[in-house]
Amino acid sequence: MSFDVLQDQIKAKKNPIAAILGAGLDDIPSHILKKHTAQYGETLEAAAGAALEFHLGLIDALADIVPAIALSCAYFEALGWRGMKVLEALTAYAKEKGLFVIADGNREGIDGSAAAYSAAWLGETEVGSSACPVFSADCVTLSGYMGSDAVKPFLKDCAQRNKCAFVLARTPNPSSKEFQDLVSGDRQVYTAMGDLIQRWGRGTAGKYGYQALGAVVGGTQPNLLKPLRRHLDKTFFLVSGLGAQGGVSADVRWAFDELGRGAMISDSRSILRAWSKAGGNGTDYQDAARGAAEQLRDELRRLITIF
Amino acid sequence: MSFDVLQDQIKAKKNPIAAILGAGLDDIPSHILKKHTAQYGETLEAAAGAALEFHLGLIDALADIVPAIALSCAYFEALGWRGMKVLEALTAYAKEKGLFVIADGNREGIDGSAAAYSAAWLGETEVGSSACPVFSADCVTLSGYMGSDAVKPFLKDCAQRNKCAFVLARTPNPSSKEFQDLVSGDRQVYTAMGDLIQRWGRGTAGKYGYQALGAVVGGTQPNLLKPLRRHLDKTFFLVSGLGAQGGVSADVRWAFDELGRGAMISDSRSILRAWSKAGGNGTDYQDAARGAAEQLRDELRRLITIF
Repeated sequence: MSFDVLQDQIKAKKNPIAAILGAGLDDIPSHILKKHTAQYGETLEAAAGAALEFHLGLIDALADIVPAIALSCAYFEALGWRGMKVLEALTAYAKEKGLFVIADGNREGIDGSAAAYSAAWLGETEVGSSACPVFSADCVTLSGYMGSDAVKPFLKDCAQRNKCAFVLARTPNPSSKEFQDLVSGDRQVYTAMGDLIQRWGRGTAGKYGYQALGAVVGGTQPNLLKPLRRHLDKTFFLVSGLGAQGGVSADVRWAFDELGRGAMISDSRSILRAWSKAGGNGTDYQDAARGAAEQLRDELRRLITIF
Repeated sequence: MSFDVLQDQIKAKKNPIAAILGAGLDDIPSHILKKHTAQYGETLEAAAGAALEFHLGLIDALADIVPAIALSCAYFEALGWRGMKVLEALTAYAKEKGLFVIADGNREGIDGSAAAYSAAWLGETEVGSSACPVFSADCVTLSGYMGSDAVKPFLKDCAQRNKCAFVLARTPNPSSKEFQDLVSGDRQVYTAMGDLIQRWGRGTAGKYGYQALGAVVGGTQPNLLKPLRRHLDKTFFLVSGLGAQGGVSADVRWAFDELGRGAMISDSRSILRAWSKAGGNGTDYQDAARGAAEQLRDELRRLITIF
């Protein structure tokens, strides 16, 4: 089943890092942006062309290091339909390169709209008697506020196509506490959501014991992951694991089980931004990204061993 | 401020109904779909062409009856980037026709991704020194599980561009109770979310007293709307108001204030599906939609008077 594919990839590369792709235009080196605005003016067409070139370059640079990329849908949507076309192209290219592709869009709908979102991101759209693939990612992120109606169509596509999904549980942003930390009975709201995620995924566990529905959790809050890992023993975690200084938080080790499985750490955009942190003009952005990805991988390897 | 524009439109048409647009391919009359598959085969290109034609026809049929349309993003996303192109075209056309456009996508992100979503749907994307409009709706639906980080960038665009947003509070789907009805202290989780929505919107009230951040609530659960309306007195409601039989639930009158303001009722897709309910082949889909919209409007007028 679904998370098996990802876990196998993590194991093969001995690296549980997912590189986030999805750059704001400020994150794209100016030589790339200028090339496209010279041709198309300061337009969304130029921006989409630059985004395509930049991210294709990142995929080339990272394909043998990271097992997965997480495409941050919002940044492509901000370029309109042309950005969505780029998203389709990047998904196809990354899969060709053997990468596991997470569409990180936090989609949420019910009934027909949840089924349409699932068709868009994991499944296919039926046109007459033909099934047409759309974005065709391997995995999506979802918001589960509306309950099981919002996840069921995805679970169906996961089962039929060996895919998987993450649902927001305890997110790492500062304001997550406003709502997610509210107390409900003997639990906090995020634990209640975690319980629902594990319940909704029942019956979908694969060879590593993880169900097709995982949870998004923050990795930098002390004492969060250890009890969550114990409690949600069948739930794969997508962890935002970088601390304020950009390094890996030692706490993320608690997201993994005793065999170093069951979790993937997102790089918090540090890989795509590595060139600007290095202070150059970005002509070396591929080398910078590769270097940052190797460094993160090596830091993680010191914290956990993946069997 | 923002909800003033919508309230003025509702007042002018004496109609608080938003028509949901966003058809699955089964909801599009076969003569339209066939015309496009004859030209492009059974492809997403054909499906997008059919969706464009069908929805343009609906906008023509409805423009003088309803004040607003809610574009259900999922159905367009299921057609890939071509569907998103249709969404852009429909938004522009509906605005040209004087309709208020709600992008109903339940988007959710934080920091950069929330800002990117807001740029996509309400604001503009900066390319070099040029600000490029993207989807340019008047209003969006959001999910607020991640807290204020998910809504702040939208509130900024609302303030700058006189726009508004709805956040999911108590949704009308059967499984909403799994999570939204959990008890937290003396409230249920959906009331806690409602309180947050009203708090996040503080300082943005317009001439009718409603803040730029509204709430999505179900209209068919007895005894839900009356206390919510009293409690969230500055929060505009987007209500799914049709009962199981397709008629307007009498309960929806409680969503409105004593002057018949502060709420909009969505038609639960009954307008776009009117032709198939009538049992014909759909060549009359525009008349059927128009008739259904007029009937809903007249039912609502019997329940409430809008001042």
